[in-house]
Amino acid sequence: MKGTVLYGPRDVRFEEREDPKILKPTDAIIKVSATCVCGSDLWPYRGFNPITQPTPMGHEYCGIVEEVGSDVKSVKPGQFVLGSFFVSDNTCPHCQLGYQSSCQNRELIPGAQAPYLRVPLADGTLVATPDIPSDALIPSLLALSDVMGTGWFAADAAEVKPGKTAVVVGDGAVGLLGVLSAKQMGAERIIAMSRHESRTKLAREYGATDIVTERGDAGVARIKELTNGIGVDSVLECVGTQESMMQAIRSTRPGGYIGYVGVPHGVELNGQQLFFAHVHLHGGPAPVRRYLPDLIKLVWNGKIAPGKVFDQTLPLDQVAEGYRAMDERRAIKTLLKP
Amino acid sequence: MKGTVLYGPRDVRFEEREDPKILKPTDAIIKVSATCVCGSDLWPYRGFNPITQPTPMGHEYCGIVEEVGSDVKSVKPGQFVLGSFFVSDNTCPHCQLGYQSSCQNRELIPGAQAPYLRVPLADGTLVATPDIPSDALIPSLLALSDVMGTGWFAADAAEVKPGKTAVVVGDGAVGLLGVLSAKQMGAERIIAMSRHESRTKLAREYGATDIVTERGDAGVARIKELTNGIGVDSVLECVGTQESMMQAIRSTRPGGYIGYVGVPHGVELNGQQLFFAHVHLHGGPAPVRRYLPDLIKLVWNGKIAPGKVFDQTLPLDQVAEGYRAMDERRAIKTLLKP
Repeated sequence: MKGTVLYGPRDVRFEEREDPKILKPTDAIIKVSATCVCGSDLWPYRGFNPITQPTPMGHEYCGIVEEVGSDVKSVKPGQFVLGSFFVSDNTCPHCQLGYQSSCQNRELIPGAQAPYLRVPLADGTLVATPDIPSDALIPSLLALSDVMGTGWFAADAAEVKPGKTAVVVGDGAVGLLGVLSAKQMGAERIIAMSRHESRTKLAREYGATDIVTERGDAGVARIKELTNGIGVDSVLECVGTQESMMQAIRSTRPGGYIGYVGVPHGVELNGQQLFFAHVHLHGGPAPVRRYLPDLIKLVWNGKIAPGKVFDQTLPLDQVAEGYRAMDERRAIKTLLKP
Repeated sequence: MKGTVLYGPRDVRFEEREDPKILKPTDAIIKVSATCVCGSDLWPYRGFNPITQPTPMGHEYCGIVEEVGSDVKSVKPGQFVLGSFFVSDNTCPHCQLGYQSSCQNRELIPGAQAPYLRVPLADGTLVATPDIPSDALIPSLLALSDVMGTGWFAADAAEVKPGKTAVVVGDGAVGLLGVLSAKQMGAERIIAMSRHESRTKLAREYGATDIVTERGDAGVARIKELTNGIGVDSVLECVGTQESMMQAIRSTRPGGYIGYVGVPHGVELNGQQLFFAHVHLHGGPAPVRRYLPDLIKLVWNGKIAPGKVFDQTLPLDQVAEGYRAMDERRAIKTLLKP
């Protein structure tokens, strides 16, 4: 088969790769129905994370089970499944406490931007949908494997509750789905920090009540102005830069909560500043597996449509254009069809 | 009157100061029954925090109300009262949400190491005991004004719950009272990190089930060994150095909670390390005022005896010796009697 491989900064190739096969009795092979480019793929694409060898790309996927290893019990060939970007056994102590993305047997899904994918620890990782979905549902199901689950974790970690006010820092797919998550969790007021028209539009559609275009000191001042000088209960940090983390910390009221899910790049937090900010801080790689059963139900029943973040769809062999469009912010998120 | 003034590193003087008087109608004047030296007083004493001018010292106190301003409604002359090290109005939005130590009208109590003390915002700051306490209760009541409330906040922020395992980093008065707090909150296992015999003894008396003497990598390895490689649910960080914060972060299981109450000095947290540690982090100046009514009850009814951390008692005019004894770790905490 052909699959996606990153060779270096902005050098994405769609080239011949070995067909995946069952290597362990706990593996499954999936025929990928849809995959996509992740905001986090842009870190190595832009050269921020060094590429030391040609690297198969992609960790978001959904599709039909093609084959399973002899130990796999919970999914079978012919079922439509999806799973988290991190493989988990779903039985270790960390998994049992709901932190499957810190599973003691964690692996990153390798090379999902391809027509076929090997998923290790299939029983702990994959969840089947109630039936084969219609084509219309596939983008929203695909979104669950990372960005929707990550936005949900941000809102959960930020303790969004009915009646609360939330700020969402970042208007990428995760930030937009953070808005959707905060809305689902009952936030009364959702302030999206965004300055891109198409993203602002989707943020409003997902439930944002206010849009703040300012950043840095001006952004913090605007949030304070909108909240009688108090700051907000919950901030979802969905970027991962020093500026966005400080935006989050400074926008939160004392005793408020920050859920941070943007993989930090160059972020250093001053202990004393954090101490006197008096905030709760929780984040990390989203334990998507924990949320999958509930999120699949919400999509299946038409309660949420996270697939709207895909504003570009390309055949998989045009994956390089997908990276370019996201890099240049022409697309929020690119869906790829094998 | 004479009171305590810090002139520079290790230069504490007990010298003539102006008698405090009512400056605003919301003030109260207290005749101090007992005061003490705080671990945080040692930062400026040791020269870590610069002293730019002679500074009246002390922020822990309890005593009899001598006089109140015309607006004070909740306490009256003759009552025995205590309050937090931070003055609060107890009505602003931060106070209403339980973060009185971030009160919009917050002030640090100035110069409590003296026979008389002016307490601003008396209604929001002071809490009266049910009656005049016996002399035997005074050390435990005094401890509530900072160290006990701070240890309690550490345990509360670390989400200590019945059946959980907690680690306490730091064996100063706050750490020891963190052990006591974790015990009160029902922790099943309490691991105290300590290498000083007298402190270890008190930690055990307060409820520590395990003592770890190692620090740094060895300390983390020992905690992991004691918890089947998993890490603990709750860590109380009661020091405030880079080493102690990293000890806390690395000892916590993914999804676990850190309550940090040691004022950070020179602490910088790497964003990516914190992200992948997957921990909850909450801390800051303890909102002691929130806990005072409940803690007074616990002391009054003999359920807790936080006053045991005072292993040295001196007449107030020997305050300089109190600082020396704590600096040299000859005393855990020094009580001063005017």
